[in-house]
Amino acid sequence: MTTIDLNSDLGESYGAFKIGFDEELFPLISSANVACGFHGGDPATLVRTVQACKAHGVAVGAHPGFPDLVGFGRRTMGASASDVFADTLYQLGALDAICRAYDVKMQHVKPHGALNNMMAHDRGLADALVEAVARFDPTLLLFAMPGSELLNAGEARGLTIVREAFADRAYNPNGTLVSRSVPGAMITDPGEAAARILNLAMHGAIETIDGSEYGLTAGTVCTHSDTPGAVAIVTAVRAALLDAGISIGAPGVR
Amino acid sequence: MTTIDLNSDLGESYGAFKIGFDEELFPLISSANVACGFHGGDPATLVRTVQACKAHGVAVGAHPGFPDLVGFGRRTMGASASDVFADTLYQLGALDAICRAYDVKMQHVKPHGALNNMMAHDRGLADALVEAVARFDPTLLLFAMPGSELLNAGEARGLTIVREAFADRAYNPNGTLVSRSVPGAMITDPGEAAARILNLAMHGAIETIDGSEYGLTAGTVCTHSDTPGAVAIVTAVRAALLDAGISIGAPGVR
Amino acid sequence: MTTIDLNSDLGESYGAFKIGFDEELFPLISSANVACGFHGGDPATLVRTVQACKAHGVAVGAHPGFPDLVGFGRRTMGASASDVFADTLYQLGALDAICRAYDVKMQHVKPHGALNNMMAHDRGLADALVEAVARFDPTLLLFAMPGSELLNAGEARGLTIVREAFADRAYNPNGTLVSRSVPGAMITDPGEAAARILNLAMHGAIETIDGSEYGLTAGTVCTHSDTPGAVAIVTAVRAALLDAGISIGAPGVR
Amino acid sequence: MTTIDLNSDLGESYGAFKIGFDEELFPLISSANVACGFHGGDPATLVRTVQACKAHGVAVGAHPGFPDLVGFGRRTMGASASDVFADTLYQLGALDAICRAYDVKMQHVKPHGALNNMMAHDRGLADALVEAVARFDPTLLLFAMPGSELLNAGEARGLTIVREAFADRAYNPNGTLVSRSVPGAMITDPGEAAARILNLAMHGAIETIDGSEYGLTAGTVCTHSDTPGAVAIVTAVRAALLDAGISIGAPGVR
Repeated sequence: MTTIDLNSDLGESYGAFKIGFDEELFPLISSANVACGFHGGDPATLVRTVQACKAHGVAVGAHPGFPDLVGFGRRTMGASASDVFADTLYQLGALDAICRAYDVKMQHVKPHGALNNMMAHDRGLADALVEAVARFDPTLLLFAMPGSELLNAGEARGLTIVREAFADRAYNPNGTLVSRSVPGAMITDPGEAAARILNLAMHGAIETIDGSEYGLTAGTVCTHSDTPGAVAIVTAVRAALLDAGISIGAPGVR
Repeated sequence: MTTIDLNSDLGESYGAFKIGFDEELFPLISSANVACGFHGGDPATLVRTVQACKAHGVAVGAHPGFPDLVGFGRRTMGASASDVFADTLYQLGALDAICRAYDVKMQHVKPHGALNNMMAHDRGLADALVEAVARFDPTLLLFAMPGSELLNAGEARGLTIVREAFADRAYNPNGTLVSRSVPGAMITDPGEAAARILNLAMHGAIETIDGSEYGLTAGTVCTHSDTPGAVAIVTAVRAALLDAGISIGAPGVR
Repeated sequence: MTTIDLNSDLGESYGAFKIGFDEELFPLISSANVACGFHGGDPATLVRTVQACKAHGVAVGAHPGFPDLVGFGRRTMGASASDVFADTLYQLGALDAICRAYDVKMQHVKPHGALNNMMAHDRGLADALVEAVARFDPTLLLFAMPGSELLNAGEARGLTIVREAFADRAYNPNGTLVSRSVPGAMITDPGEAAARILNLAMHGAIETIDGSEYGLTAGTVCTHSDTPGAVAIVTAVRAALLDAGISIGAPGVR
Repeated sequence: MTTIDLNSDLGESYGAFKIGFDEELFPLISSANVACGFHGGDPATLVRTVQACKAHGVAVGAHPGFPDLVGFGRRTMGASASDVFADTLYQLGALDAICRAYDVKMQHVKPHGALNNMMAHDRGLADALVEAVARFDPTLLLFAMPGSELLNAGEARGLTIVREAFADRAYNPNGTLVSRSVPGAMITDPGEAAARILNLAMHGAIETIDGSEYGLTAGTVCTHSDTPGAVAIVTAVRAALLDAGISIGAPGVR
C-alpha cells in the first residue's frame, strides 16, 4: 500500500501573538515543521507544540528560519554560509531539547520561508545548512524540493531526502513553483488541490500552469498553514488520498 | 592533591557588539559559562567560543539567562516557572547542538545574572530550571551557591552539585554576597582576591565583610568577566593556587 | 451634555503575528492606545493603525511598554528610572513620527501592562515616565487610574490628567482593581459591564466586589482588547451610554 | 573660508555591549550619525549620545538601519518600500524625541550599512526613505553619496543634499567605492587619508584605485568608526584641513 506524508508549518505563534491554525491541523497531518524561535515560535509555544504533536501522533521536524521575526522569515537576508551554519545548529538544538524533554524523536528538517527559497538556487547556503544537520544528527530526514540545490546538497552529504510537493502552489512546466506574484500561483480550491495531489500520488505527475504534466514523485506534501483555506485543503487532500486507499503517515516511522 | 575549578562567563558578545575579555581568560580558567543567546551570545559567537574552549581545554557549561538582551539579563523579570522551564530547555539545547558539532561534551549549567539571583530565594523558579536540566541531561553538573534555593532544588532532583564561591565579591557574615550597591561589595585587588581564595581552598573559609570567617567549601570559583581587572584577578588567583600546590581543573573531567 | 471617552489598546500586532480585534473596535471607541514597538506594534502596523484611527476619527495615544515582546509587556521588569525615561521618550517619538506623517496630533499617553501596574505604586518609575512625557510634549494628556502614583506624578509635573475606569475589571472596596488571579476579577458579561459604566457616568460611582459602591469619576473608560468578548462589551457600553444621552468622545478634541 | 564637515557613526552600542570609539571621536568630528535602535543604539545609549553631542557641539543626525541587530545592519534584506518607509519614520521619531528632550535640533539623516548600500542602486527603496524624511521634517539634510539613487531621490523630493566622501575607502575610476572584498579597498594609513581629503577639499578631486583622479565635491567626509585606526585617521584628516586653513563645521549650523 502506498503511504504519503502530509506536512504543515506549526508552532509559529510567538507569546501572545498568534499565527496559523495549529489546533485544526494536528488531527489532519502526519508531520509538523515546527518553528525554532527565529521567524516565530517562542520556547513556551514550542513546549506546547511538541506536546500536542506527541498527543496526535504527528512527527516533529525542525523548521529553522532567518532571524527576522518582524518579517516572519520571509525576507531574503544577506546571510553568510557561516551564519546559516551557526543559526541552523542553534535552532536544531533548541527544538531538539524540547523534544528530548518529552521523549519525542525529532524526525526531519525543513528550512522556512526565504531561507528555503534561497536554497533552491544557492548551493553554498544549502551546504552550510546540510553540514549543520549532518553534524547534529545525520539520521534526520531532509525535506527538499526536487530540483533544488538543497536536495543536491543533502544527497551529496549523505542525508536521507524526502522529496516534497506542494498542495497549494501551481507549478511551472519545468517543475519549479510559480512565483507568488503571478496570478494563479496559489491553489486555494480544496477540490482542485485534492485532485492534483491524488494524481501525484497515483501517477507520479502534477499538472503545470500551462496544462502539461510534469513528472514528480514526492514522499511528503506540504500545505502552507497560512494559505487561505489551508484547513479545508488539507481536509480534502487527506480524504481523497484515504478514499483511494493511500495511507497517510510520517516517513520516519514507516 | 587538591583541585579547584576556575570559572568565568564567556561567549557573551553579540554579533559585532563586544563584551568581556574572552581571549585573555581562555588560558587561565578551567570552566566557561557560555551565554546561550538570550542575554548575549549569538549563534556565530557560540560556535567560535565552543571551538576556543576545545582548543584551550576549557570545559563548556551553559549559562542561560532571561530574554533581555538590552538589559544583559541583569534585570529581574516576572517570568513564570513555565517560562523558565521552556527558556532553559531552549538555551541548553541550542548550546549543546554547537558542542555536539565539535565533539565537545557539555559539562555544567549555571544560570546568569538576575535569573541566578532570583533562584537564590525563589524555589519555584529554581525547581523549573532544575527540571529542565534533569530532563535534558541529568549528568550535567549544576554550579550553585551554598545556601541558595537553586542548590536545594538541584539536590532534591538528584543533580550533581558543584558549590561555587566568588573571587571578586565580598561576603556577609551569614555567607550571602554583599549587595553590589554596598561599598566594598566588589573585591578588585588581585592580591586580596588571591589571598581570599587561597584561604578558601586550604582552610575552607572565607573572610566576611565584618572581619569574621565564614566556613565555606567550594569546588569552583567564579570571577565575573566584567569586573574591573578581571583578568588580573584570575591571573593572581591562579598563580596563588598553583604556588600552593593546588591544581586547577574542571570538575567534570577529574 | 456629558461626554465620556472609550479607549482600547490597538495596533499591537507584530508583523504577520496578530493580536486583538482592531477592525471591530475602530468604529466603537473614541481613543486608541497604540502600541509603540516594544511589547507589540511593528512600524508597518503602526502606519496602518494611525491611518485607520484617522479614518475613523479615533484619537491616537501612545501606549509605551516594557521591551518584552515575547511576554507582551505583561511581566514586571527590574527597569531603572533612567531605563523608563529613555524607553518612554523613544516610544513616544516613534509613534509621533508616524502621526506626523499623516497629519494626526497625538492626544495622550497611557503606559501598558506591567509598566502601568508598577506605576500604580512606584513613584520613581512614574516620575521617570512623566518627565519623558513633559519634555516631549507637555500638552499630551495622561490617562491614569485614580489612586495611582502615576496620576500623582502627572499632577505634580503639571500634566493634564484624564482619570480612567475599567469596564471589564472588578473593583476592590478601596478603589483598586481586583487582581486577575481572584475569581470574579474580570467582568465579561456585556450587560453587566454596560450597567456598571452607565452608573459610573451618571452617578460617579462603581459597584465593588463586596457590593458596596466606590465613588469614582472618570473621563475615559478602558476595555482591554484581549478580554474575552471585548467587542461585545464595548458595543454594550457604547449603546447604554448613548441611550442615556451621554455622548462618546475623545478628551483631547472636546 | 572653506568649511567641511567631518562625520562618523556614533551611539551604536547596545546596553552593556560596546562598539565604536565614541569618546575619542566626539572632540574631533562636527556631525554624528546616531544609531536609532535597529542595527544598534538602545534608548539609554541614545540619551547619553545626544547629551554628549550637545556637550561637544557636534550636530546630531539620524542613522536608520535595517532591523538586524545581530548582523549590525550590514546584511542586505528583502525589505519592501513600505517596510523602509515605516521603519525610517519610526527611527527618525525615536531619536528626535530624545533630541527634543535635550533641546537639540536634529540636523540630518544618513542611512546605515546595507540600507545605504542598497539605496545606491535601488530607487524604490531610496524614494521610500526620502518620503519618510520629507514627511517627518523636510528641513532635515540628507547625507548622500554622489552618483547614488539616494541622492537622486532626495533631490527629486526637494530635500537639501550634503554630498559625502569617505576618508577610509578607495574609489573606483567611475567614482563608486571599491568593494570591501577587494584588496586596497580600505584606506587605513592616517597620512594617506589626510592627503586624499585635503586634495578633495582644495581641488575637488580624489585619487582613484588606478591612480587617476575623479572629480568630486563633498560637503561632508565620513570615517567609519569601526575602521582600524579610525581615531588616528580622523585626527590626521582634521589636522591637515585645519593646517590648510580649512575649517571644520557641521553643514546645518553654517
